[in-house]
Amino acid sequence: MRDHIKIPEVLAIAGLGQMGASFAMAVRKFLPEIRLSGWAPSQQEAEKAVELGIVDEASTNTKKVLSEADVVMLAMPISPLIDFVNDHVTEFKIGSIVTDLSSVKSDIVDGIRPGLCEQGVHFIGGHPMAGTEKTGMENGDADMYTDKVVFLTPFCTDDPAALSIVRELWRSIGGNTFEVDAVDHDVTLARSSHVLHINSNITTHVCLQAPNKDLAMLACGGAFRDTSRISSSNPDLWVNVTKHNKQAILKAMDETLDQVSHVRSWIEGEDWDSLYKFLAEGKALRDDWWDSFNKLDKK
Amino acid sequence: MRDHIKIPEVLAIAGLGQMGASFAMAVRKFLPEIRLSGWAPSQQEAEKAVELGIVDEASTNTKKVLSEADVVMLAMPISPLIDFVNDHVTEFKIGSIVTDLSSVKSDIVDGIRPGLCEQGVHFIGGHPMAGTEKTGMENGDADMYTDKVVFLTPFCTDDPAALSIVRELWRSIGGNTFEVDAVDHDVTLARSSHVLHINSNITTHVCLQAPNKDLAMLACGGAFRDTSRISSSNPDLWVNVTKHNKQAILKAMDETLDQVSHVRSWIEGEDWDSLYKFLAEGKALRDDWWDSFNKLDKK
Repeated sequence: MRDHIKIPEVLAIAGLGQMGASFAMAVRKFLPEIRLSGWAPSQQEAEKAVELGIVDEASTNTKKVLSEADVVMLAMPISPLIDFVNDHVTEFKIGSIVTDLSSVKSDIVDGIRPGLCEQGVHFIGGHPMAGTEKTGMENGDADMYTDKVVFLTPFCTDDPAALSIVRELWRSIGGNTFEVDAVDHDVTLARSSHVLHINSNITTHVCLQAPNKDLAMLACGGAFRDTSRISSSNPDLWVNVTKHNKQAILKAMDETLDQVSHVRSWIEGEDWDSLYKFLAEGKALRDDWWDSFNKLDKK
Repeated sequence: MRDHIKIPEVLAIAGLGQMGASFAMAVRKFLPEIRLSGWAPSQQEAEKAVELGIVDEASTNTKKVLSEADVVMLAMPISPLIDFVNDHVTEFKIGSIVTDLSSVKSDIVDGIRPGLCEQGVHFIGGHPMAGTEKTGMENGDADMYTDKVVFLTPFCTDDPAALSIVRELWRSIGGNTFEVDAVDHDVTLARSSHVLHINSNITTHVCLQAPNKDLAMLACGGAFRDTSRISSSNPDLWVNVTKHNKQAILKAMDETLDQVSHVRSWIEGEDWDSLYKFLAEGKALRDDWWDSFNKLDKK
C-alpha cells in the first residue's frame, strides 16, 4: 500500500465461496495487518471459514459484519448480491468502501450504487479475471489473483481516495488493475467469458451426445479436456450472469452463429482457401494474444 | 511384446513431424531392440532426425526406407499420405505392415488399402488421441502416447497377425488400443475433435475481434486460454482433415448451430429454467467424462 493512502483496518468479505475465500487468503498473505471478518449465510460456513483460518472472525449477522468494516468485498452471485446490499443498505458504515468481483458490472452499478451513495458509502466495482470451474472455500487459493487482470469500473464522480484504496488493495495482492467503463466491460466480457462458457457447454453436449456414446467417451481427448473445462462450472452462477448481461450475450451469440454459418458454407462449397485463411487468422490472433498474456507485467 | 508375435526388426517412420518423431522416440524408449529408420522430404530434416537421436538412420530415398522396413508408420497429413503411398506402392516390402496415425480413417482406408493389398502389404489404420497445438520434431515427446486412447480400424479380412503386431506396438509404448469401425470413428471424431478445432478457432475470432480490441486482449483470461488453445494448431493440417471428413463435419456443425439457436432462444425469452437445465446437463456430462478419462487404465 502506498503511504499516503490509509490502510483499511477491518476488511469484511460477504460471501465465502471460492472467490471470496481466495480474496481473504490473499489479503491475509500480502496485507497481514488487515483484520478480516466474514459474512456467510449459514453458521456452519461462518465457523468453517474461521476454523480454516480464512478470516479472523465470521458471522451470519450482517449488521455486525457490515457496520464494523472499512472495506466490504461483496463475493456472491449477481442477483443475491444486489438483494443483499439493498436489504442491508443502512447497515454499512458511513464513509466505508464497498467493492465486488462480479463478472457483470452495469447491473451491479445500477442496482446498488445509488442506495449506497445515499447512505454515504462509496462503491467501486471490480472484476478480477480469475476463477476456476470449482466452487467452495475449500478451493480457495491465496495466489488466485497474482498477476491477473483486475478491471475496476469507477464513475467520474467517485471519490478518488476510495478508488485508490480499492486499486491498491488489488495491487498489493498481486493484481494488475485497469479502469474501464462498465458498459464496455460487459460488452467485451460477453464475448471473452460469458458466451465462452455457454459455447463450451454446448461443445460438451455435441461431443458427448454422439450417436455412439461409449465411443464418444473414448474419442474425447486433450483437445476436449481443455475446450470443455469451463462447462463444469456452476450452472446457477452462469444463468445468473446471463440474466444480467442478456443483450450483450445475445449479440455475441449472433456473431458466433454468423461465423459458424460462414465456415460451414466454405466447407460445403469446398472453398478450402477461405477456410485456410480463416483458420490461419484465428491462429495468428491466438498466438499474438498468448504472447501478450504471458508478457503482462505488474504495473 | 507378447512372445508369440514376432517383434519387427526394422520400423520406418515416414514423416518426422511432432507425431512421427514422438512415435519414434517412444519406440526407442520402450522397445530399444527395434531399429528405427526415418523418411523425410528434405535432406536437412533427415539429418536433423539422426542428429537428435530420434531415428538410427534417415533418408529422403523412399525405396531405401520402405523396402527395408518390417513396419512402416505413416506420419503425415492425410492428402500427402495418400499420394505418398500410391506414388511408392511398389517400394514397400512384401509381407510388411503399414499403419498410420491420422485422425480421419475412411478416406485413408479407401485411398491406400487396395493398392497396398495388391502388393501383398498389410494395412491397419490407427489413430492415437494425442498431439498438441505445436509442430515439428523438436516438439516430439517419448511419452506422448502414454495412457492415451489409440483407435485401430482393422477390416474383418485383415491378417490377425498384422493387427496383433500393430496393437502390441502401441501397447508396448503405453497406448490403450480400441478396435472400431472406420466410419463410426470418423462420425464420432467429427464431433470430439474436428469440429472442436473449428469451433475453438471461431471462439478466438469472436473474442479477439471485439469492438474494443485492446480491452478484449485484457479480458481474455484462463477460460479463453483453455478453450482457444487448439486454435493455435496448424491450419494446413485442419483444412486437410476437414476435406477428408466433410460430411460428418457438416453434420456436427449443423448440430452445433441447432444447439446455439436453442440456447439463444431460451436467453431471448428469459426461459432461465431451460438454460439452467441445459448447463447442468452439460456439467454432469463433462464431470462424468472427466472421471472416466482419469480412470482409464491400460488394458
